[in-house]
Amino acid sequence: MTRQQLFDNILRKQSFLCVGLDTDVDKIPECLFDESDDPIFEFNKRIIDATADLCVAYKPNLAFYECLGLEGWDVLERTVEYIRAQYPDQFIIADAKRGDIGNTSAMYARTFFSHMDFDAVTVAPYMGEDSVKPFLGYEGKWVILLALTSNKGAFDFQFTESKDGGERLFEKVLGTSSQWGNADNMMYVVGATKADMLADVRRIVPDHFLLVPGIGAQGGSLQEVAHHGKNTQCGLLVNSSRQIIYASAEADFAEKARAEAQRVQEEMKELLKTM
Amino acid sequence: MTRQQLFDNILRKQSFLCVGLDTDVDKIPECLFDESDDPIFEFNKRIIDATADLCVAYKPNLAFYECLGLEGWDVLERTVEYIRAQYPDQFIIADAKRGDIGNTSAMYARTFFSHMDFDAVTVAPYMGEDSVKPFLGYEGKWVILLALTSNKGAFDFQFTESKDGGERLFEKVLGTSSQWGNADNMMYVVGATKADMLADVRRIVPDHFLLVPGIGAQGGSLQEVAHHGKNTQCGLLVNSSRQIIYASAEADFAEKARAEAQRVQEEMKELLKTM
Repeated sequence: MTRQQLFDNILRKQSFLCVGLDTDVDKIPECLFDESDDPIFEFNKRIIDATADLCVAYKPNLAFYECLGLEGWDVLERTVEYIRAQYPDQFIIADAKRGDIGNTSAMYARTFFSHMDFDAVTVAPYMGEDSVKPFLGYEGKWVILLALTSNKGAFDFQFTESKDGGERLFEKVLGTSSQWGNADNMMYVVGATKADMLADVRRIVPDHFLLVPGIGAQGGSLQEVAHHGKNTQCGLLVNSSRQIIYASAEADFAEKARAEAQRVQEEMKELLKTM
Repeated sequence: MTRQQLFDNILRKQSFLCVGLDTDVDKIPECLFDESDDPIFEFNKRIIDATADLCVAYKPNLAFYECLGLEGWDVLERTVEYIRAQYPDQFIIADAKRGDIGNTSAMYARTFFSHMDFDAVTVAPYMGEDSVKPFLGYEGKWVILLALTSNKGAFDFQFTESKDGGERLFEKVLGTSSQWGNADNMMYVVGATKADMLADVRRIVPDHFLLVPGIGAQGGSLQEVAHHGKNTQCGLLVNSSRQIIYASAEADFAEKARAEAQRVQEEMKELLKTM
């Protein structure tokens, strides 16, 4: 998907919501296990069907599938196929946080972009350019590089100021890595819990899309994120996972997920008026 | 496995070799596809059988299995089971380079330590303490944290000097993270291609085991690594992947892999004399 297509989808749907498919076998409604032989996929399918007109992206979190072994991997593959077939305008993100030496990153790129048909994969920056570049060789596919994450541990290293110029590590990651690709094949993860830093991020990467986790369960504010982070093409994909997909643990879970997604989308519609 | 058990295995086998199972479907001998319905597992099995008395650890690289989808994940699980059943003294490392917010890292930990029976998993440090801690809650299991990697991209961020005290990022990672666990549940990745840095690493973490990739195909020297990196309990696991497992592309591949592993083990035996 191109940046323009993504922006067109945002305008058409009046939403920059990404729904995180952190599907946890211990948290999905009990009733699904009675109703279906395939409860984890069924959960994803119903969440997707209930929210697809309200969001522009889905983000399966790989850990939640890998921990189920073969069955989880199979559900992941079928979930991506289902979204691609039913809702071809969705941007599908593998939240995998991969990154390794060149030949290994090339294998991961093949996994997510050829074997499966994801649009983007999240990548960790610690190993530098050759760990990221192999993901950039696919037309219409994206790297979403970790810059400033939403967790407490972000303060351990990401804010370390450098001797030369005093830039913080996340700023160096943004500045350096933005030379490896461009705003048409790279995005950055910037946590909503550090919304006031979004202005600093925007000074370095004014045009790139930012994937923003951390609203909802992690406590970030959508208003703050939009205020500091938006650009002329919106430039934001704001993720919500638990608050939407676990809005109810009962038979009405899809309906309640839709209601929660709609609440967020309506807020986004207002925020898009000022972009 | 405890640190003492690992050291005992090193002394008994006179080896600190880790064989990297970077099993690439495009590089394994053609003949395996004729001989077996299960050529990738068969390759691993024969490599393991040919080298198990010469090494103390195996390190499957997850990317090479994930890129095959369900089949790859199945081969990975069976490979770990095979090593565990046949060679229970082997230390088995998931080279996965994971790391995410706490609840997600907990899922990855469950994958590698409960669902599969790995002894250790490689983890990326960028997201800080809460991305690493969930892996440390398993008795006898280990985190191997990336500190100084063997690739060219290591220079992009890992050597950035901090404003306070001028320590380089990899030094800060070592110093900070060594407070999260201890030498009995954490190791560090330090690339052989930067062997002269091993002395700097040892000043910060004198007791920890180091997993050292980069000898062989990547050009690092075993002599240099041992000279700068060894401690009183050896403290080194030196990995070789391609140079051993692809020593031959013909029917004699296992025999040639053994010969190459033996060459390395004999060199290690000499180096252990001075420890």
